[in-house]
Amino acid sequence: MRFVILAEQAFGPLTSKTANAFIRYTPEKVLAVIDSARAGRTAEQVLGFGGDIPVVATLDEALATRPDALLIGIAPPGGQLPAAWRTLLARALEAGLELWSGLHFFIADDPELGPLAQRKGIRIHDLRKPPADLDVARGRVREVDATNTVILTVGTDCNIGKMTTQLQLRDAAVKAGLSVAFAATGQTGILVEGWGIAVDAVIADFIAGAAERLTLEGASKGEIVLVEGQGSIIHPSYSGVTYGLLHGSLPHAMIMCAQPSRTSINHQPWVKIPPLKELIALHEQVAAPLRPAPVIGVALNTFDLDDAAALDAVKRTEDETGLPATDPVRFDPAPLVDAIGRFHAARRTPARGVARATQHA
Amino acid sequence: MRFVILAEQAFGPLTSKTANAFIRYTPEKVLAVIDSARAGRTAEQVLGFGGDIPVVATLDEALATRPDALLIGIAPPGGQLPAAWRTLLARALEAGLELWSGLHFFIADDPELGPLAQRKGIRIHDLRKPPADLDVARGRVREVDATNTVILTVGTDCNIGKMTTQLQLRDAAVKAGLSVAFAATGQTGILVEGWGIAVDAVIADFIAGAAERLTLEGASKGEIVLVEGQGSIIHPSYSGVTYGLLHGSLPHAMIMCAQPSRTSINHQPWVKIPPLKELIALHEQVAAPLRPAPVIGVALNTFDLDDAAALDAVKRTEDETGLPATDPVRFDPAPLVDAIGRFHAARRTPARGVARATQHA
Repeated sequence: MRFVILAEQAFGPLTSKTANAFIRYTPEKVLAVIDSARAGRTAEQVLGFGGDIPVVATLDEALATRPDALLIGIAPPGGQLPAAWRTLLARALEAGLELWSGLHFFIADDPELGPLAQRKGIRIHDLRKPPADLDVARGRVREVDATNTVILTVGTDCNIGKMTTQLQLRDAAVKAGLSVAFAATGQTGILVEGWGIAVDAVIADFIAGAAERLTLEGASKGEIVLVEGQGSIIHPSYSGVTYGLLHGSLPHAMIMCAQPSRTSINHQPWVKIPPLKELIALHEQVAAPLRPAPVIGVALNTFDLDDAAALDAVKRTEDETGLPATDPVRFDPAPLVDAIGRFHAARRTPARGVARATQHA
Repeated sequence: MRFVILAEQAFGPLTSKTANAFIRYTPEKVLAVIDSARAGRTAEQVLGFGGDIPVVATLDEALATRPDALLIGIAPPGGQLPAAWRTLLARALEAGLELWSGLHFFIADDPELGPLAQRKGIRIHDLRKPPADLDVARGRVREVDATNTVILTVGTDCNIGKMTTQLQLRDAAVKAGLSVAFAATGQTGILVEGWGIAVDAVIADFIAGAAERLTLEGASKGEIVLVEGQGSIIHPSYSGVTYGLLHGSLPHAMIMCAQPSRTSINHQPWVKIPPLKELIALHEQVAAPLRPAPVIGVALNTFDLDDAAALDAVKRTEDETGLPATDPVRFDPAPLVDAIGRFHAARRTPARGVARATQHA
């Protein structure tokens, strides 16, 4: 299955999250990106990775690359289908392309596109569509407490690297010989990994239930379950999803994700991001009533800094928090993989180790 | 419109939340309660309020009271329709009764009951059905900051009095001459009040957006907006809804609801309820990054204590927290109404008052 990605007027490091992750982890599946504002450039030139995948101006140019499917590569706030795209998606279906979408709006339910796909016998993949049989959480993650270690990424904001960090750590952990599984909680993670539940698209009462189910499924695939975080506990729009995920997945430890240059919530500048040490303490405080879980490392997103500034940010973060830090995309993820490996090993060591591992720093 | 309430095998102080609130606030609309396990008793005998509303064993006995509608009076975890009830609901429709339901499962979507109601020309009211045009929160509650004061009830657990407290405070505040509105966030509040959104039934990404919309609507109806709280920030199943509601409604102050006899989360005994003072501090900490909001009073639910023990619990709570406390159902709600009135007045006093009101105790 080879894809063209629709990111019209939006292809960029911070504006086309789904496109970017798909290009980062499965570049071999991507034939072209549609964005008339950036046509003529390559993914590498726009994102800093992705090699010579071309950016083209029109669907016709994209069709000339002979794709099997079209992926909607942006996740606009609210997740609705931009009206201007309906015609283009209809033409893609007419041309025989499958549609893959992570919008809250389910393309298959569109009164024009759904029936058109059915007539043509073409599949529409709405990645955010939740399972029909979700339930409320019941703390069942505790059942795998003796065998598995759950690590959740948390963050200062949305779109800061919570999924990317886990994918980078997963790849490095596998190389280091750890038994590890990635549990996808958002449309992009599901797209990359092939399974998961978009916890922000379930009925609100079932957020933690979806997180519990995902975490248990992850525990069946690896000893260490790396749960993809969502949003932020201080995000004015999405904090409910973040907390439900935290209390449903019941992590044993957390990795904090931050972007050193970001001082307030994206698009909500009235919410200032507190100092990292305070935010780490707040996470440990809200986790504690259900399961004490320390933050054991910090993953920085330094894409907008030069090398010297990025290294300096890592050093300053380590000094400020007393925790291992790295940019797991730009630099070696080893400091965080080592922290996770040590934490897991300590929990598996009888008595003394378990006690130590659940204490806060 | 006069109702019979279905609470089969579940009519009781802690097990039929929707029935209980409807009986407490609109007893004149209730003709009978169906619960074969408690047939022959009255609402007063089962709940401690509700007068001589009879409990009957069968739908036929309930129909003999000549009702217009049947209300589903329980809210089971997960909100599905107990299979055994489908036949009874079909018979109620056949007998011409409207159906009112607060389940997550929408009765109107049931393949048998929906078409049956349509054929008979009878309305089904699914109270939890969210508006179709919800959006993510954008912090718009800040727009009414100068004119309105938002008060949110929070609690140690579910089903502990967050809605009842606000309704008791609303009634007492109206009598005290305050301009006040109640914003319903759950199916029972909507049933009692006639408007609102069940925030636990919206798509997870829209919890805070729904809370924002509700709070703004409340602000158009009264200076002081009493927002009905949901769940608890330490509830393993529902904390996501609680946090989304907190960060979407952006309260200026909170009222903490607690049941002195409850020491762990209902049905989840592995989660211990922390000391009230700690839980109050945690609420203030999680609110602060968006809008500092003190807890300004404690509402106790003492239904299972005798008078002396209830008074003692109020006194101990005041000593422990340094805040005004009462059981607003059993005793005079005045201590909490006064605290809210003072808080609102201080915010409306220029400069010094606003500064003082947003400081923590």
